[in-house]
Amino acid sequence: MTLTFTPLPQMPLIYPGDNLAEILLASMQSARVGLEDGDILVVAQKIVSKAEGQLVSLATVTPSKEALELAKRSEKDPRLVELILRESNEVLRVRPGTIIVEHRLGFICASAGIDHSNVKGNDGNPEDWVLLLPKNPDSSALEIRRKIKVTTGNRVGVMIIDSHGRAWRMGTVGTAIGISGMPGLVDERGWQDLFGYRLKITMVAAADELAAAASLVMGEAAEGIPAVHVRGFPFALRESSLKELIRSKENDLFR
Amino acid sequence: MTLTFTPLPQMPLIYPGDNLAEILLASMQSARVGLEDGDILVVAQKIVSKAEGQLVSLATVTPSKEALELAKRSEKDPRLVELILRESNEVLRVRPGTIIVEHRLGFICASAGIDHSNVKGNDGNPEDWVLLLPKNPDSSALEIRRKIKVTTGNRVGVMIIDSHGRAWRMGTVGTAIGISGMPGLVDERGWQDLFGYRLKITMVAAADELAAAASLVMGEAAEGIPAVHVRGFPFALRESSLKELIRSKENDLFR
Repeated sequence: MTLTFTPLPQMPLIYPGDNLAEILLASMQSARVGLEDGDILVVAQKIVSKAEGQLVSLATVTPSKEALELAKRSEKDPRLVELILRESNEVLRVRPGTIIVEHRLGFICASAGIDHSNVKGNDGNPEDWVLLLPKNPDSSALEIRRKIKVTTGNRVGVMIIDSHGRAWRMGTVGTAIGISGMPGLVDERGWQDLFGYRLKITMVAAADELAAAASLVMGEAAEGIPAVHVRGFPFALRESSLKELIRSKENDLFR
Repeated sequence: MTLTFTPLPQMPLIYPGDNLAEILLASMQSARVGLEDGDILVVAQKIVSKAEGQLVSLATVTPSKEALELAKRSEKDPRLVELILRESNEVLRVRPGTIIVEHRLGFICASAGIDHSNVKGNDGNPEDWVLLLPKNPDSSALEIRRKIKVTTGNRVGVMIIDSHGRAWRMGTVGTAIGISGMPGLVDERGWQDLFGYRLKITMVAAADELAAAASLVMGEAAEGIPAVHVRGFPFALRESSLKELIRSKENDLFR
């Protein structure tokens, strides 16, 4: 079966309190993208954060002593660093221009996922405003999924993604930060190969594999499209949580 | 534009010397998948390695002293460990059941990408045979691309992928190990966002994002499909090398 990623164009700018499920359905209607059971909607973190009012004015932030010290080492705005610390469980690496943390949601990312771009505050000066990640992306995904079920009757999966850098390889890749109604991991342990020889453990990060290609379709900036419709996901939908995809500190050889 | 991943079914078992370009084109024809300029063919490492005769009988391998020592620490077959060492620039981490290396091709992966599964040697005992990665996957991709150009006249991209584990997150993801005629990285530096505010550097690992979803379509085992046709890749094709995607040791905070 062919796997398809269809961008949802003509999304309006998103403001706090907006109903994303409604907006996604309207966008699908105008793009003539139908919805079927088993489809997956992939939503960019930015519009979820905006709808949830996660925009913060740096003018309201007072950096702690720890933030001032880390701001020096990282050559970043101390107020931004204060927010990074508040959003993180642990700082893993610091270099000029770079702070890698374990986000309070458990995954590793740069700057706790806090973003300047495509952010415009009430004073119209984008330099002074930043956007935090959604408070609980699994719950955000679940809420969108439930509303879609109520409105259309369709059983779909919903995933919220962001662009993450990686160890070992150059470039960012789209990565799941919240999932609902679709597997994070798919366990291929014990499947037999062509010769009946048992495969060793293979756990496939199906949600991240989907997030990556969805991100490719979204782009990043001016032409950016914040939502993608996916059809043909080759695994059964089920209840899940992003926790499936987080490697525990104890089982991570590279922290 | 919709991005589509279409599995190429009914591929025959691959043997040393097979002409993969011919086999891919025949499979596309039988699946009624047409080829256009700008399409990308994603090929699983396994069939490239098989066509290149990278199958090795463990009975022919004599482990070195270093391999014997590492086999103890990793609880792996010393002959397999010997091959892992021969295929690697550097061993990064060792635990029972796990050897993480920098492959001679520059990327980080487990067991130098050497695989037992779907491998059958001349004696019919899959336990005694392993499959090394292709000698030079960029060249393998280029060769397939050139032959397709000669036969069909089409300008396509070709990518060879494998499944890699990751730092920080659970599960494997499809990852590029050789590319030809398509970008590895797409540089989004300096694009303007919706408010004319300049984005900071964003380098997107476009090839890996594509590899991930292609891998999702391939599956891993009995039902596995070793090649996928991609249409709608949203960036211009160009000459490239996997080197684009390799983070240098000096610039890697997690080695």
